[in-house]
Amino acid sequence: MPDSRRRNSTPKMVDISEKPVVRRQAIAEGRIVLRKSTMKLLEDGTIEKGDPLQIASIGAIQAAKSTPSSLVLCHPLPIAATSVDFSKSADSVTVRVEVTAESKTGVEMEALNAVSCALLNIWDVVKKYEKDENGQYPSCRIEDIHVVRKIKGGKGNHGSKETPPRS
Amino acid sequence: MPDSRRRNSTPKMVDISEKPVVRRQAIAEGRIVLRKSTMKLLEDGTIEKGDPLQIASIGAIQAAKSTPSSLVLCHPLPIAATSVDFSKSADSVTVRVEVTAESKTGVEMEALNAVSCALLNIWDVVKKYEKDENGQYPSCRIEDIHVVRKIKGGKGNHGSKETPPRS
Amino acid sequence: MPDSRRRNSTPKMVDISEKPVVRRQAIAEGRIVLRKSTMKLLEDGTIEKGDPLQIASIGAIQAAKSTPSSLVLCHPLPIAATSVDFSKSADSVTVRVEVTAESKTGVEMEALNAVSCALLNIWDVVKKYEKDENGQYPSCRIEDIHVVRKIKGGKGNHGSKETPPRS
Amino acid sequence: MPDSRRRNSTPKMVDISEKPVVRRQAIAEGRIVLRKSTMKLLEDGTIEKGDPLQIASIGAIQAAKSTPSSLVLCHPLPIAATSVDFSKSADSVTVRVEVTAESKTGVEMEALNAVSCALLNIWDVVKKYEKDENGQYPSCRIEDIHVVRKIKGGKGNHGSKETPPRS
Amino acid sequence: MPDSRRRNSTPKMVDISEKPVVRRQAIAEGRIVLRKSTMKLLEDGTIEKGDPLQIASIGAIQAAKSTPSSLVLCHPLPIAATSVDFSKSADSVTVRVEVTAESKTGVEMEALNAVSCALLNIWDVVKKYEKDENGQYPSCRIEDIHVVRKIKGGKGNHGSKETPPRS
Amino acid sequence: MPDSRRRNSTPKMVDISEKPVVRRQAIAEGRIVLRKSTMKLLEDGTIEKGDPLQIASIGAIQAAKSTPSSLVLCHPLPIAATSVDFSKSADSVTVRVEVTAESKTGVEMEALNAVSCALLNIWDVVKKYEKDENGQYPSCRIEDIHVVRKIKGGKGNHGSKETPPRS
Repeated sequence: MPDSRRRNSTPKMVDISEKPVVRRQAIAEGRIVLRKSTMKLLEDGTIEKGDPLQIASIGAIQAAKSTPSSLVLCHPLPIAATSVDFSKSADSVTVRVEVTAESKTGVEMEALNAVSCALLNIWDVVKKYEKDENGQYPSCRIEDIHVVRKIKGGKGNHGSKETPPRS
Repeated sequence: MPDSRRRNSTPKMVDISEKPVVRRQAIAEGRIVLRKSTMKLLEDGTIEKGDPLQIASIGAIQAAKSTPSSLVLCHPLPIAATSVDFSKSADSVTVRVEVTAESKTGVEMEALNAVSCALLNIWDVVKKYEKDENGQYPSCRIEDIHVVRKIKGGKGNHGSKETPPRS
Repeated sequence: MPDSRRRNSTPKMVDISEKPVVRRQAIAEGRIVLRKSTMKLLEDGTIEKGDPLQIASIGAIQAAKSTPSSLVLCHPLPIAATSVDFSKSADSVTVRVEVTAESKTGVEMEALNAVSCALLNIWDVVKKYEKDENGQYPSCRIEDIHVVRKIKGGKGNHGSKETPPRS
Repeated sequence: MPDSRRRNSTPKMVDISEKPVVRRQAIAEGRIVLRKSTMKLLEDGTIEKGDPLQIASIGAIQAAKSTPSSLVLCHPLPIAATSVDFSKSADSVTVRVEVTAESKTGVEMEALNAVSCALLNIWDVVKKYEKDENGQYPSCRIEDIHVVRKIKGGKGNHGSKETPPRS
Repeated sequence: MPDSRRRNSTPKMVDISEKPVVRRQAIAEGRIVLRKSTMKLLEDGTIEKGDPLQIASIGAIQAAKSTPSSLVLCHPLPIAATSVDFSKSADSVTVRVEVTAESKTGVEMEALNAVSCALLNIWDVVKKYEKDENGQYPSCRIEDIHVVRKIKGGKGNHGSKETPPRS
Repeated sequence: MPDSRRRNSTPKMVDISEKPVVRRQAIAEGRIVLRKSTMKLLEDGTIEKGDPLQIASIGAIQAAKSTPSSLVLCHPLPIAATSVDFSKSADSVTVRVEVTAESKTGVEMEALNAVSCALLNIWDVVKKYEKDENGQYPSCRIEDIHVVRKIKGGKGNHGSKETPPRS
C-alpha cells in the first residue's frame, strides 16, 4: 500500500530522555552580502540606527536561548555559553557563533538560529543603505549558513574536519 | 575629530509615528541545499519526525508574527496575512513567503525572518539524514535569502522588477 | 484525481487586510469539575499555593494577549479589554471571559484561549487536593468550553441567542 | 480569628529544589465536538486553512514547552519528548498527548496545556465551517480534558488504572 | 457590610475601546549606583562581558515592546519609537527612555519598564565588579525610577512641569 | 595602543559549563513610594483594577522565570522556587523576593528582575490614583532595588551580613 507509506504522520518531538548528559558544542557560520558603500559606513561607525555588530551579537545570544520557541521540534536546553564573532570583507560580514551546553542533544540548531538572527539584525540595521530608489534590495543577500563543526564530549571531535564555507 | 565621528551612538528604534498607514507587502525567498537522498525521503513523505514543509510553514507564520522580539529594532506590526510556498529541485527546497500588513513601515524583515525560520525548521526536521558518520553536516546549507519584492500601496510597485535568485 | 483533492496544502494565515476595523466582542465559558472537598478549601480561602481565582484571572488576561503565539493561524489584535468572571457550584468553577477589540477579525479565539488558560491555572493551583494516593486525578476534568456569544459592531447581535452550556 | 484563616496569602511557587530528578510521564486527553459536515471536510483533507491535525500537533508541542509562561506557578522543565495522537469519531476529534521529562516535578500540566492548545488550534482552523448565519457557534465545544495517567520513575505505575473518558 | 467593601474583585483589564487614538509620549528615568572603580572600567570600555550601555539600550527597546507580557494589565500598543540615553556621574549611570505611540492609552508603563530593564542589564553586565569577597553586593543599587513627563496629543503638555529626580 | 584597549568587544555570554551545579538562593528587595491616599485604598482593598499585591506577586513569579529573555547575557536556569513578600509603610510598599535554584550560576538577577517587575505591576494597577490633574506622576517612585543576600550551597553564607536598605 504505497499510500500509507507516503502519508506523513503528525510531527513528533524525538524522545531524548535516555540519552546521557554530555558537553556539546557547535559552531555555525553565515554571511550577509552588503554594498561596499554600506561596508564603508559600518567601518566608519556611522550607521544611523546603531552599531550593527553590537546589535547582531545581542540578537544572536537571545536567539540561541529562544531556539525552542522558533524551531518547532527542538528541545529546551540549558545553554552554558554563546559567543559571537564577526569577520569582514569588502562587501560582506561573516557571523560565526559558538554555542555550548551540557545536554542530552546537540546544539547545532541553536548555533544556526543565532547566526541567522544575527544576519537578519544586520540587515535590519543597515536596510536604509541597501534599498534602491524603488525601495527594493537589488544586492543584499544572506548566504551560506552552515554548521562549521559539532563537538560531542569534552575533548572535541578532533578527527573530524571542518565544513568549509562554499567556495 | 575622527574619533567622535567613529563612535556609534546607542541603538535607536526609528520614529515611525508620523508615517501614514499604508498597505504593505513583501515577498522574500531562500533555499536549503539537501542531499538527493534526503529530497527523496521528503518526496516520499517518509521523514521520521514529520512533514518538513508543514512544520516549516507553521514556523514561518509564527516567525512573521514574532519578528519584533527577534529583530531588536523592528516595530510591532498588525500582520494581516502570511502565505508560504515551496518549490523543490533535485537537491534543494526553496521557501517563498509573502507578508501583508496595513502599517506605517514595511514588512520585508517579517518576510525575511519567516523564510529564515522556515529553512531552519526544515534543517531541524531532516538533520538525521544530513549528518555524516562523525555527526557533521558536510553539505547541508542555507543559501540566498533575499527580498524578491516590496510593495507599498494597494496597487503594487508594478514598475519595479523582481530581485532574482543569484544565478 | 481524488488524490490531489485530498492533499492538504500547507497552512495559510487568512488575509484580513481588506476587512474593516469594527468593534468586536466575544464571550466564552468553560468549567472545571473539582472535588467537593477542594471547593470547600477554595471557599475558605485556604488553598496553600494561593487564591485560584486571582491566579486564573491573571492567567486569562495574559492568555488573551498571547493568543497569536499559541494559536498558529491567529492574527495579532489590539485587545482593548478582557474581563473574567467566576461562578461556583458545589463541585465546579465556571469561568466566563469577555474580550473586546477594535479589529479586522473576531476575538472569539482570544476569549476561548483565556477561558482555557484560566481553567488550567485553577487545576495547577489545586492539584495537590485532586490527586489520589497513586498521584492520579480520578475526577478532575475541564468541561464544556464554548463561545457564548460573538458580537460584531457597536450594538451587538441582539437578535442572536446565546449558546447555552451543555445540559 | 476566622478572617485570617480565610485570607489567601499571595501566590507561591512551591519549592521543588529538594526533590529528586526522576523520569516523569503524563498522558492527557480532550475532545472537540464538531459538525459532521466539518468532520467530512477534515477527512477529505479539504479544510481551506490547512490540515487541522498537523497544525494542532505543532501547537501542542509548542504549548508543552511554553507551559511555565501560561501557567503561573509551573516550574520550567527540560521536556524530553512530546507526542500527539488523534482519534476521530463521526462528530469529534480526540487529542491525546504524552509528555516525558527527567525532572523534579510532574509533567501533567504540560500534557494538559498541550491538549488544550491542540484543541483550540483545531477550532481556529475549522471555525469557518462551525459558525451559523449569525456568526455564532451553536455546537462547537471542547469537552473532557483530563489526565489519563501520570507515571513516576522508569517503570511506570502499572498498578494504577487509567482515568477513563467520561461516559 | 465592611467585608464586601474590603474584598478585592479579580483583576480587570480596563476597557479602552472607546478612547481616541492620540499621539502619546512618555519619558521615564532611573539610576544605578555603582562603585567608582566600576565606573572607571565602564569609561575605559574594558568591562569583560561587553559594553553595558549598548546592551542596556537593546534591553530597553526590547522591554518597551514586551511590556504587555510583563505587566499583567497593560494593553498591547503599536510602539512607534523608543530612544534611550545615558548620563554618567562618578558613581552612577542614569538611564532616560522616551517611548512614542499613536494609541488609545498612555505609554508611561512602557517607558518605566524599559528604564528598569536597562538598569538591570547594566547590573548584570558589571556584576563581577560589584561583588565583595563573599559574593554580596554591598553598594550596587537601583534608585529613583520615575516618570519625567507624559505627553498626550501632538503638541505636548507644555504647561506641565517635569517631575525632577529626587534630590 | 590605548584605542584597542578602549574598544569594547561584542557582548559575550560567560561560559558556565565547567561550574558545578549547586543550590543557589538570592533575596532582593525594592520599594515603591505611593501617596498616603493610595495606600489607604490598597489597605481597604478598593483599588478598582484589582489587588495590587496579588497581581504583583504573579508578575514577580513570571518575571523570575523569564529573566533570560529580559536580561541579555543571563543563562536559562531551572528555577525551583520563587516566593514574594510585601511590607507596607504609610507611604510605600516594599517587595521582597527569594529565588532558589540548583544551578551553575547565581540567581540574584532573577530575584532583582522579579522585584522590579512586581513594583512596576503595583504602579500600573494604582496609576489612576497617582496621577495629578495634568496626568503627571509627581510623587510615585521606585526606590532602592538591591540584593539583600546571595547564598551558595546548602547551608547559606551565614557569616555574611545582609545588605540593608538605604537609610
